[in-house]
Amino acid sequence: MKARNPGEKLHLNLFVMGNGHHRAAWRHPDSCAERLGDIAYYESLARIAERGKLDALFFADGMSVGSVEDGFHWHLEPLTALSAMSRATRRIGLISTISSTFYTPFHAARLVGSLDHISGGRVGWNVVTSMFDSEARNHGYAAMPPHAERYARAEEFVQTVLALWDSWSDDAIERDRQGRYADPDKVRQIDHHGEHFLVDGPLNLPRPPQGNPVLVQAGASSQGRDLAARYAEAIYAVAYDLEAAQAYYRDIKSRVAAAGRTAPVPILPGLVTYVGSTMEEARAKQRELDDCLPVEASLRQLGLFIEQDCSGWDLDAPVPSLPPLAEFRGPQGRYATILRIVETEQPTLRELLGRLAAGGGHCTMIGTPESIADEMERWFHGRGADGFNLMPPSLPSGIEDFVDQVVPELQRRGLFREEYEAATLRGHFGLERPAG
Amino acid sequence: MKARNPGEKLHLNLFVMGNGHHRAAWRHPDSCAERLGDIAYYESLARIAERGKLDALFFADGMSVGSVEDGFHWHLEPLTALSAMSRATRRIGLISTISSTFYTPFHAARLVGSLDHISGGRVGWNVVTSMFDSEARNHGYAAMPPHAERYARAEEFVQTVLALWDSWSDDAIERDRQGRYADPDKVRQIDHHGEHFLVDGPLNLPRPPQGNPVLVQAGASSQGRDLAARYAEAIYAVAYDLEAAQAYYRDIKSRVAAAGRTAPVPILPGLVTYVGSTMEEARAKQRELDDCLPVEASLRQLGLFIEQDCSGWDLDAPVPSLPPLAEFRGPQGRYATILRIVETEQPTLRELLGRLAAGGGHCTMIGTPESIADEMERWFHGRGADGFNLMPPSLPSGIEDFVDQVVPELQRRGLFREEYEAATLRGHFGLERPAG
Repeated sequence: MKARNPGEKLHLNLFVMGNGHHRAAWRHPDSCAERLGDIAYYESLARIAERGKLDALFFADGMSVGSVEDGFHWHLEPLTALSAMSRATRRIGLISTISSTFYTPFHAARLVGSLDHISGGRVGWNVVTSMFDSEARNHGYAAMPPHAERYARAEEFVQTVLALWDSWSDDAIERDRQGRYADPDKVRQIDHHGEHFLVDGPLNLPRPPQGNPVLVQAGASSQGRDLAARYAEAIYAVAYDLEAAQAYYRDIKSRVAAAGRTAPVPILPGLVTYVGSTMEEARAKQRELDDCLPVEASLRQLGLFIEQDCSGWDLDAPVPSLPPLAEFRGPQGRYATILRIVETEQPTLRELLGRLAAGGGHCTMIGTPESIADEMERWFHGRGADGFNLMPPSLPSGIEDFVDQVVPELQRRGLFREEYEAATLRGHFGLERPAG
Repeated sequence: MKARNPGEKLHLNLFVMGNGHHRAAWRHPDSCAERLGDIAYYESLARIAERGKLDALFFADGMSVGSVEDGFHWHLEPLTALSAMSRATRRIGLISTISSTFYTPFHAARLVGSLDHISGGRVGWNVVTSMFDSEARNHGYAAMPPHAERYARAEEFVQTVLALWDSWSDDAIERDRQGRYADPDKVRQIDHHGEHFLVDGPLNLPRPPQGNPVLVQAGASSQGRDLAARYAEAIYAVAYDLEAAQAYYRDIKSRVAAAGRTAPVPILPGLVTYVGSTMEEARAKQRELDDCLPVEASLRQLGLFIEQDCSGWDLDAPVPSLPPLAEFRGPQGRYATILRIVETEQPTLRELLGRLAAGGGHCTMIGTPESIADEMERWFHGRGADGFNLMPPSLPSGIEDFVDQVVPELQRRGLFREEYEAATLRGHFGLERPAG
């Protein structure tokens, strides 16, 4: 395993999510459940993250409403929210999810490009293809197009957006008050007539400050990993433990190399943290959120995941042993995660419900700033991660804990920047500005 | 003609446009041509307009690049720009154009709804169907769909957006920490399966603060006027003089009444103003901008409009008489405007080029604050206008002149508010919040 270069540092994003990534976070008496539509709340999260010198804020996004009764997190539309948040901050990056299945490339190029101008080059675009029929049925499809078709469209979508951002040369604008505003030879049509899109161009917006806003992806399937390897400049990942993270990391880095690319392409697994000045305090924070879970509904949901009736199980006894994966006939991914948690952590039933309610299959670190920094360092040096996409179980307290306690410990170890050294998201991620 | 109610006041919007509505404004030595991508520039315009207690800021929008050499105004994408501008202001409304031909209703409902949440209920949506093949060819169409088809789509689009905004009842959210986040019976699918759109809903955003963000339209064709009469809550108009304004005003108000609506539906013609402390000073400001026009290119363009070679004409002599409209075989609208200007203003050729370069067929008022207020009052009491969509020939100076000189004169006459009385755009326009 190649050692890290001296001075090489972690990259940290804040994954912005309602009142936090624990499904019951909004139920906590101190939660900001009243502020999910209040832009000042999101701005305050952004300022906390910037105080911690984080690389970027990240909004996931979906196109439909789930259950509004329990684990529901609605949020403002990411692009409009991030525009406001850009004015409440100066350096931190701003990453929005946009679905290639539901937007047109021209809208995506323009919205993201405009936000890059507004923020002075701090924008990233997380390319997703979306998953659910309920989303498709809000945008004219009777059902979600098949996986392969979505990815074929996504690739053409990305190519078209890149071409639109490049449709103005950096030096197109002359602003000669006695002559021309711009050189028409440097503002070119792209004449894209592909299988999924017809886009003549040029974009009605000069080249974004970053050239291309940063492309982010979270490829899990083989097709997704290939798309990420060819285009992504930073990658979000799901890894339950270091071993899983290392396998994903190796696979992606080799695909990136095979695609002939030399860019760093940082890989950032999701990370749920409970931080306390002692392990007991950290555990108590976790328990406090877990105790907010409505037990009956959670048991019902677990019952669906494992296809057993667990309503009679003892909440404070260890989870009974479960049939092996090979014998399970329902959806495999979630069941595998549950088996993994039960085997490695030997949780009580109550603890299992809590773990599933907060970032499920994502890595969870519980402890002191020192023990969490140890663990993050192990992932970093063990090449399971180039950084993390922070998923605080509750917001704002979870990101305050991280920024005020873990970040200084990482800085003390030389693992994280003490000040921003760049003004753009590309700069934070160590990416070159493309020549165009 | 029905007299105005005592206390009835004008509504004023600022039509935000690059360096101003005069095509040569960017060429002026003092112009902000360097700041077209600088959000702080737009924020400063917003603050000036809010200092003047204007009802709203308005962004027009298009989906393609015109000539980048001469009269080119690019601007930031309106929704992202307005989100930032909302945080630089407290009361002024924020109206974005969105094309029903190129967006999906779900995106439009969500983006506009999100901005309404962010701004605390200050948003309006100017519904357009777009016009140019160059725009269509950036969004997958080989050419612009026919007019009738665009309007049929627009109507279904508006209905769908309204249904999505209504998909959450005002009292859907319970936020009961021991119970439910929201009442699932009050978050309903819309199940819209129409000719142009399939949208199940509900929207993934609670009802906007205004219930419905304000619908704005600018119907010119008969189909456009009908759409406006059925749905618009404020209307932008093009009227060269009071007579034309009155004809349009009467027609729209009777169509609104025929549609069974009692809402006020303010009609706001575009208005270009040159303000000076004397008429000479106002004329000098106009001349200063007109002198920035590149003469050859302007003559070439005029030649295309009137289908004559005018390159040999004397710039400082009156425009030669032109053939009547009936004998003209090119596009009628612009030619009619040119005839009208030549007949009523007897301009020199240089003056005509200037008039065409600044708001062409829109009303232009040149003079002192008093004379302009007189004229606006005449339009208001003569029921040609319920207010105006201000199109300053140069920005920011043109809106500063208006806010600092004309607004106080209107206020002195009781024709314009001295303070905001409402917190929402609906409130500024005197519109009720729909019950949903």
